[in-house]
Amino acid sequence: MPTRIVVPQAYDVVGLGVATLDFIGVADGEPRLGIKQPLAHWIEAGGGPVATALVTLARLGMRVYMAGAVGDDMYGQRIITELAQEGVCVDGFQVRPGSSHIAFALAEPGSGRRTIWWHNDPSVFEGVTLSREIVTSARLLHLDTNMPDVALTAARWMQEADGLVMIDAERFKESTLALLPYCDLMIVSERFGREISGEAAPDAAARFLHARYGGVAIVTAGEHGSWCVGPDEAFHTPAFTVDVHDTTGAGDVFHGGFIYGLLQGWSLRETARFAGATAALKCRAFGGRAGIPSLEEINGLLAG
Amino acid sequence: MPTRIVVPQAYDVVGLGVATLDFIGVADGEPRLGIKQPLAHWIEAGGGPVATALVTLARLGMRVYMAGAVGDDMYGQRIITELAQEGVCVDGFQVRPGSSHIAFALAEPGSGRRTIWWHNDPSVFEGVTLSREIVTSARLLHLDTNMPDVALTAARWMQEADGLVMIDAERFKESTLALLPYCDLMIVSERFGREISGEAAPDAAARFLHARYGGVAIVTAGEHGSWCVGPDEAFHTPAFTVDVHDTTGAGDVFHGGFIYGLLQGWSLRETARFAGATAALKCRAFGGRAGIPSLEEINGLLAG
Repeated sequence: MPTRIVVPQAYDVVGLGVATLDFIGVADGEPRLGIKQPLAHWIEAGGGPVATALVTLARLGMRVYMAGAVGDDMYGQRIITELAQEGVCVDGFQVRPGSSHIAFALAEPGSGRRTIWWHNDPSVFEGVTLSREIVTSARLLHLDTNMPDVALTAARWMQEADGLVMIDAERFKESTLALLPYCDLMIVSERFGREISGEAAPDAAARFLHARYGGVAIVTAGEHGSWCVGPDEAFHTPAFTVDVHDTTGAGDVFHGGFIYGLLQGWSLRETARFAGATAALKCRAFGGRAGIPSLEEINGLLAG
Repeated sequence: MPTRIVVPQAYDVVGLGVATLDFIGVADGEPRLGIKQPLAHWIEAGGGPVATALVTLARLGMRVYMAGAVGDDMYGQRIITELAQEGVCVDGFQVRPGSSHIAFALAEPGSGRRTIWWHNDPSVFEGVTLSREIVTSARLLHLDTNMPDVALTAARWMQEADGLVMIDAERFKESTLALLPYCDLMIVSERFGREISGEAAPDAAARFLHARYGGVAIVTAGEHGSWCVGPDEAFHTPAFTVDVHDTTGAGDVFHGGFIYGLLQGWSLRETARFAGATAALKCRAFGGRAGIPSLEEINGLLAG
């Protein structure tokens, strides 16, 4: 009788972070506070920095796993189901008492301006767990800043296993600082770069991050492109020009594109250009995920 | 063998209008457009002018029936279920292709200012039907302005049956004008009063409505109270002073309280005071319905 060998599932990328449900209202005219206004469209869309990056990677054919938590409200199961339908392994999700992370995002097609009001119960995210075996089965661990304790443990495991650790940081939090020395890649918002470094210019903020924490630092600045500072080079990558409908999730998709390029073994410059094209194409559609492009579409824009 | 006589259900009040699901975000600080802000609370609550008035009446012990339509999205069934749980007969609801009426309402506890972004598919509300037998079984028909054709038919039936017709009008629409001559009671917002009459003062707007259309006209003005003009009298009713958390639905609840008083045979003055107390108590809680008071609570405030 042949022996059946059970091979544990291995992933290309394991993510840890918040997955959200966004209600996107598309403004019909100039929004104003204090009045009652109709919306041109109302769209529900899953979001979250790590979640949307993993969806990007799943669409590009990668095997991805996510750990996180949702609340026991009407949104939680929906958030998980949507991720699963996108091909993300959601075995690491917990449903916990409290509110899921939800948001109302007001999109203004004319200006590209975005207003977001969000809500969650932070206690939902306490106690998320992640197995060392699953983390170290992957080539890259992608983190947000919402579960710093378990993120730190996982980042240490990944460092010991010689895997890559990436972080997506949007706003400065004290609890993020301990994570940064473990990150091979810090891809952060302009705001985070400014807040942590005190430097208004994205290139200066990226230089600060690389000098202080050692990893490759990338500061993203929407239509102004991204600035990358690594051990051997520092460069700016311009953004691609597309017809922007909604920038929601563009930064998250940039991370997904960047991870894809890294895992292909491309140079940082090639990778940053690929990530920029991926993020630009996302902006064609409302919502964080509807516009995520295929590899063919990205290559089409890159070949331009 | 005894003959079983089937008595058709009779209602105190039949309503026709839009039922909604509101997502209420309670601001944490001064809201601003163009940024990302946390909310102190996120509340889901059913709403809609006629729907919330009927819920008020059901809580006060009245038998109420509502006809309307919702979309075939994730919200429609929820809207209907919530009404049914409040004791409203929802046999007259249809589920039709398209979007239910949904809204994001930003409440500011400090100022009482409210911002609402709403969305629906108007086609969902086309083709709502209502049976003459059910309408004329009731003592009062309560209408909003969203389904003017079926509302006009039902109002004519009710007039022929010597029942009462009430309308809740918030913004001026051409299609509302044909309904007004059939309305025994027009309880309208300050805005509607101003738009239809060209008169900025609520009392002047109420006089205009009564003179032009014949029914009793009441213009409500939130914390400034209400102005009533009928065949025999014209008077102002001050608002009650309460600790206002959220005014969402206060006007709808005012209509419910007013209908209750009318059906008790109270004078217009007594009725307006009762409606004002009912609406004021609603403002204690976030959402259109959570704060709807019991008869005991209303009597407590009135005796206060």
